Amino acid sequence: MKFCSTCGSDQLETRIPAGDQLPRIVCASCESIHYVNPKVVAGCLLTWQGQILLARRAIEPRYGYWTLPAGFMELNENTAQAAARECWEEARATPAEMSLFGLVSIPRISQVYVMYRGTLHKGEYGVGEESLEVGLFEPEAIPWDDIAFPVVRHSLKRYLENPQREDVYDVIIDRNTNWQALETGAAAIKQQAG
Amino acid sequence: MKFCSTCGSDQLETRIPAGDQLPRIVCASCESIHYVNPKVVAGCLLTWQGQILLARRAIEPRYGYWTLPAGFMELNENTAQAAARECWEEARATPAEMSLFGLVSIPRISQVYVMYRGTLHKGEYGVGEESLEVGLFEPEAIPWDDIAFPVVRHSLKRYLENPQREDVYDVIIDRNTNWQALETGAAAIKQQAG
Repeated sequence: MKFCSTCGSDQLETRIPAGDQLPRIVCASCESIHYVNPKVVAGCLLTWQGQILLARRAIEPRYGYWTLPAGFMELNENTAQAAARECWEEARATPAEMSLFGLVSIPRISQVYVMYRGTLHKGEYGVGEESLEVGLFEPEAIPWDDIAFPVVRHSLKRYLENPQREDVYDVIIDRNTNWQALETGAAAIKQQAG
Repeated sequence: MKFCSTCGSDQLETRIPAGDQLPRIVCASCESIHYVNPKVVAGCLLTWQGQILLARRAIEPRYGYWTLPAGFMELNENTAQAAARECWEEARATPAEMSLFGLVSIPRISQVYVMYRGTLHKGEYGVGEESLEVGLFEPEAIPWDDIAFPVVRHSLKRYLENPQREDVYDVIIDRNTNWQALETGAAAIKQQAG
């Protein structure tokens, strides 16, 4: 942001507005405060007869790597709707049953993933515009070395540990994430509080 | 948004960029695309010896009405951290135990609430800058006629229906919400898919 989107001035500065706790981008000309907030990414792990649906990315970042269908939530959507839309856009897949799978906070890049799980309607899928290819993978055939993002790896591992597990996870993934002891968001707070 | 925040031009238009599905605000001068996304609100229902912590809002919207501590998630936070911060800012309260309570999508205003539940550390609280007063309420003393937002009403009702319930909810609240049969996000999608 180089110019104020309210008045067009280039007199932007970073300061803590009155009554606020954090530095914000403020226009010195018109006093508009320009908030920047985390983004929601909605995705879904879809299965069909024990296989998991993965899509190979045709876009950056991580072009050519495998992912679960997921993407930025749009205005006026609900989270499940956003996840289902991404399944269609990336893999021409329709979820037949969906339930909340878990939340993943990624503070380093200010994203919150809302992950669903579901079954693939009629086992049908195709290749969306943002994908190079799409496929159903047996658990032992998952291309672990070519997974696009840590959050995708986490969801796959969580699912494979126990496909019947129904408790919703709440985890934080960050640069120093210890994959052996992935702490929950709530546990992390408890530690901070002592 | 009246001016492009990248180049300062007032030649903003709304159109669907190449390869996109939805109309965006695009600068006709520098071709910057200005995405607008839903916001995450994090909150927490804190209890102490069977009572629930509520804060009366000292800010608009809904000045003077009662709410659970909740507010916009900030950059570089995780969701539980954001909820705990709001507890402190609004009610000088520290969560002693926290777990994910549920998700509420509010598509009309493009917000996703991430609600936690927890206990109030040592039963201590105070009045934060954004609150007129803060108090612990017995279930039968909750001021139902003066609750700030539908999402707060939902969380309170959900808790009181069964304080021991551990499954995480995923609901949509919108103008036409039927409170007798609040549908889950996943169920709504299933209906759409037929």
